[in-house]
Amino acid sequence: MLTLVLADTELERVPVELQRHPAVRASARKRGRSPAAILLDSSFHHPALQKFPEGERRGRPDIAHIVLVVALDSLLNLEGGLRIFVHTRNDEAIQLAPETRIPKNYSRFTGLVEDLFERGEVPEEKPLLHLDREVTLEHLLAKLGGEAWAFAEGGEPLDLRTEFPRHGEDLVAVIGGFPHGDFRSPVARLCKRVVSIHPKPLKAWTTAAEVLIAYRRALSSTPLAGE
Amino acid sequence: MLTLVLADTELERVPVELQRHPAVRASARKRGRSPAAILLDSSFHHPALQKFPEGERRGRPDIAHIVLVVALDSLLNLEGGLRIFVHTRNDEAIQLAPETRIPKNYSRFTGLVEDLFERGEVPEEKPLLHLDREVTLEHLLAKLGGEAWAFAEGGEPLDLRTEFPRHGEDLVAVIGGFPHGDFRSPVARLCKRVVSIHPKPLKAWTTAAEVLIAYRRALSSTPLAGE
Repeated sequence: MLTLVLADTELERVPVELQRHPAVRASARKRGRSPAAILLDSSFHHPALQKFPEGERRGRPDIAHIVLVVALDSLLNLEGGLRIFVHTRNDEAIQLAPETRIPKNYSRFTGLVEDLFERGEVPEEKPLLHLDREVTLEHLLAKLGGEAWAFAEGGEPLDLRTEFPRHGEDLVAVIGGFPHGDFRSPVARLCKRVVSIHPKPLKAWTTAAEVLIAYRRALSSTPLAGE
Repeated sequence: MLTLVLADTELERVPVELQRHPAVRASARKRGRSPAAILLDSSFHHPALQKFPEGERRGRPDIAHIVLVVALDSLLNLEGGLRIFVHTRNDEAIQLAPETRIPKNYSRFTGLVEDLFERGEVPEEKPLLHLDREVTLEHLLAKLGGEAWAFAEGGEPLDLRTEFPRHGEDLVAVIGGFPHGDFRSPVARLCKRVVSIHPKPLKAWTTAAEVLIAYRRALSSTPLAGE
């Protein structure tokens, strides 16, 4: 089983200090929600983020969206070999059931996550996404158990084709859910290895696709025919 | 070189018959564009599409968006080994320069494509996306040259790990840019092979990621270390 942890993800509701900013109020009005209930989104709230602490990396629900779409629709997930968690900058942990059909449309996705922050689980009829609060990455990895590797710029070079766990050994893959810069959590202390699969900086969804596909390949060396 | 052709993509402006529909007019007003200038989008125009010909598959710019994000940020593209084309249901062909930084935000993406339909190339300062009209899939493949394979549900089973072009032979990979159903273009006649990489129906971005990663792996069998 592979466990994907999107860590330090820049996914949060608008912080209280920014809730009265005109850009935030305008986008809240447009969505028909209160400024406290909407997700911070750098596409719409850029002016509010300019002088805000770490404003250059915050408000990126789009990163979580694309990674989740790629991961949930992956062959590894279709075949039952994947667990998916999103750990946020505010130390929430979101678990997604493998059968989740995440909205492909971005505004529907943000609406769903806003409901999740409000209610703790969604959808109402049959919860597939669960949110737990006060879960640091350290707590989450301890709860998950197993060997964790962090995928990070500047990590030890790793060739996914030849140096990846063989024969289906369990692995927790920690990938950063932020646009640039370092993990905010101490991954070097928390993970057995910090590895880099390419000399260039990669997007979270690029690393996720590479890791998921390589893990599935390494599961077995027998042909896929007849699967 | 791998050429990715997203074919029969459900990407079009609102057809004239639907431009007066209340759902279309509401979303055009919200975007500040005329109903004729906005993209058909099943997320917003579902009521208008219900009784429209092939309405159950049309209006899916989100599919093109996710595939383009995945492809442009792929390692194969970062390393200069990929060309990308989007062929639409109305026989337009969009070419994207490899260095295109496509907006991750969906509304910005649709705005960009709406400008592209208007002007034929975007962005103004340094065009990276070009649109040609009256280009059938047959024309496009003839222009591209080289061997084309279509990836389709029900095609001949293909194991990407072992049966993929080796040593960097050129290939044109034709992937469907629609949610379900068959290609509208006659891919069986136009392509050398029609193949299927998994018994389950796959999303376009899942197939794209698998093909791009497999092609890069097949390019060489030497370790990536020191790249």
